[in-house]
Amino acid sequence: MEEEMIKPYVIGLDLGGTNSVFGIVDSRGEIKATTAIKTQAYEKVEDYVEASVEALQIIIDQVGGIDKIKAMGIGAPNGNYYKGTIEFAPNLKWGHTGIVPLADMFSKKLGIPVALTNDANAAAIGEMTYGVARGMKNFIMITLGTGVGSGIVINGQVVYGCDGFAGELGHVIMRRENGRPCGCGRKGCLEAYCSATGVARTAREFLKNSEEKSLLREMDPEQITSLDVSIAANKGDELAKRVYEFTGEMLGEACADFAAFSSPEAFIFFGGLTKAGDLLMKPLKKSFDEHVLKIFKDKAKFLISGLDGSSAAVLGASAVGWEI
Amino acid sequence: MEEEMIKPYVIGLDLGGTNSVFGIVDSRGEIKATTAIKTQAYEKVEDYVEASVEALQIIIDQVGGIDKIKAMGIGAPNGNYYKGTIEFAPNLKWGHTGIVPLADMFSKKLGIPVALTNDANAAAIGEMTYGVARGMKNFIMITLGTGVGSGIVINGQVVYGCDGFAGELGHVIMRRENGRPCGCGRKGCLEAYCSATGVARTAREFLKNSEEKSLLREMDPEQITSLDVSIAANKGDELAKRVYEFTGEMLGEACADFAAFSSPEAFIFFGGLTKAGDLLMKPLKKSFDEHVLKIFKDKAKFLISGLDGSSAAVLGASAVGWEI
Repeated sequence: MEEEMIKPYVIGLDLGGTNSVFGIVDSRGEIKATTAIKTQAYEKVEDYVEASVEALQIIIDQVGGIDKIKAMGIGAPNGNYYKGTIEFAPNLKWGHTGIVPLADMFSKKLGIPVALTNDANAAAIGEMTYGVARGMKNFIMITLGTGVGSGIVINGQVVYGCDGFAGELGHVIMRRENGRPCGCGRKGCLEAYCSATGVARTAREFLKNSEEKSLLREMDPEQITSLDVSIAANKGDELAKRVYEFTGEMLGEACADFAAFSSPEAFIFFGGLTKAGDLLMKPLKKSFDEHVLKIFKDKAKFLISGLDGSSAAVLGASAVGWEI
Repeated sequence: MEEEMIKPYVIGLDLGGTNSVFGIVDSRGEIKATTAIKTQAYEKVEDYVEASVEALQIIIDQVGGIDKIKAMGIGAPNGNYYKGTIEFAPNLKWGHTGIVPLADMFSKKLGIPVALTNDANAAAIGEMTYGVARGMKNFIMITLGTGVGSGIVINGQVVYGCDGFAGELGHVIMRRENGRPCGCGRKGCLEAYCSATGVARTAREFLKNSEEKSLLREMDPEQITSLDVSIAANKGDELAKRVYEFTGEMLGEACADFAAFSSPEAFIFFGGLTKAGDLLMKPLKKSFDEHVLKIFKDKAKFLISGLDGSSAAVLGASAVGWEI
């Protein structure tokens, strides 16, 4: 008890394919201080950890020093909850070829206990604690960022499976013939189509395969982002709208299969792509209704996370820290 | 306590697309008496229940009368554990158009409490209690019979989802283009290919689309069963072998997707089709290894249920009865 009074904070790290966001969080879920670094600016994980600790030191000092910090929780792609490792993460240049003992590395540098889970699992825990999933026992969180991740909750528990890696729904196969190459080395994964980068790829494909007029033709194709596509779609650009229809339809088909697995009461979407709003969600829901097995019709809700993008994941990661 | 002494048995009913097998089971899992009727010999569910109770009465009398029976558990396709109903079961002529309150119907006729679950969930419970899944916390049971069913166990619990229907893995979509029509009204479901009837369909397709010599050409194509195909394959028939290769490969691809969901320590196969043994299991495992996400490689075991076909499901169903 006394120790808890002395150490009122945990560190949460939302380790994404683009940004690594750190927050120092109190026991009521208030983020007291925050900082961030670029995840991919480092070739070696040692340099990444070094830079992280450097950035962290500033906010640690702001809250009164490391003695005030009880533990650290990390949400990371391909995070192994049981071992505290990141294993073969296709979207991390310092993590795609092997097993990175990231929890141990941070623990040694900071001198506090560190736990790690899948980034999407962390987001699901954040959503369950502070967001639209409060009170839900069965839901699937789908994160639409650089990649497509998922956190699956069944009977109120995050699904970790036999090895700590369950819930990689971004890597179910949606196209068994002529599928797009995915960062994981296989072809036709959901992630290759329905991530932010997948949306940009779809736009490039649509532009290449037709002569149709589009606002997107004013851009260098290689520079197009999912945000550019949604801006163009909101201006009425037909090709851009079809890119989101294609994306939503495939997500709806995927969710129809996921419903056959765990029949969740809700699918909760999170991440940059959800900013497209109805452009994505309308075709998604329509496609789900068209494709789902009859017994699951009209049962699942389709929700967008109400939590601020980075803080949900940071809060979720920090919650893992409290549990140590 | 006293009441349990007086009522030492439960009834288990394994309600399949072809046969309905009843067993009277004691608390140690010994099947004391058994009987069966044809599931599809009745147009109306009332007649099915009537015939069931008639057949049951004989074995109930054998064990000392209905006063010795504590409860009844039913494993049935599209069974809703929460409500005791069978809902829109595509393979049941008296159950495919609506909601059948089967638990209540049996309860009224027999005067004992009745609980019902998905047939594949019942098989999974049976396997967990008496079979190769003893001690396992995370596994997926796949039943390969008239249809393809599944019972998913995560953290030691059967997955029921928000509505009691989770675990319909026979209806994930394996062919999004030119998929075979499925009994569920959609196209391309796993069940349309990898059930016993799916295997027979594949054989007919292969025979129709080539002039290749095959022992199966001696039969009326409409009469070919999955057993005929495995007999021919075991005699060295190349076309018949390819039918099982096709089936196993698709099951392996499906299991690769299921691993991405719940990362089970084992897939356990059950039902008529498993009698094909290595004809099915070798291409299945090979295909899984080729298609699964790297982090799940070499983790899941592939097992065939060691329990006798009907008794596993009957024991599983009866276990549901004990829990009332």
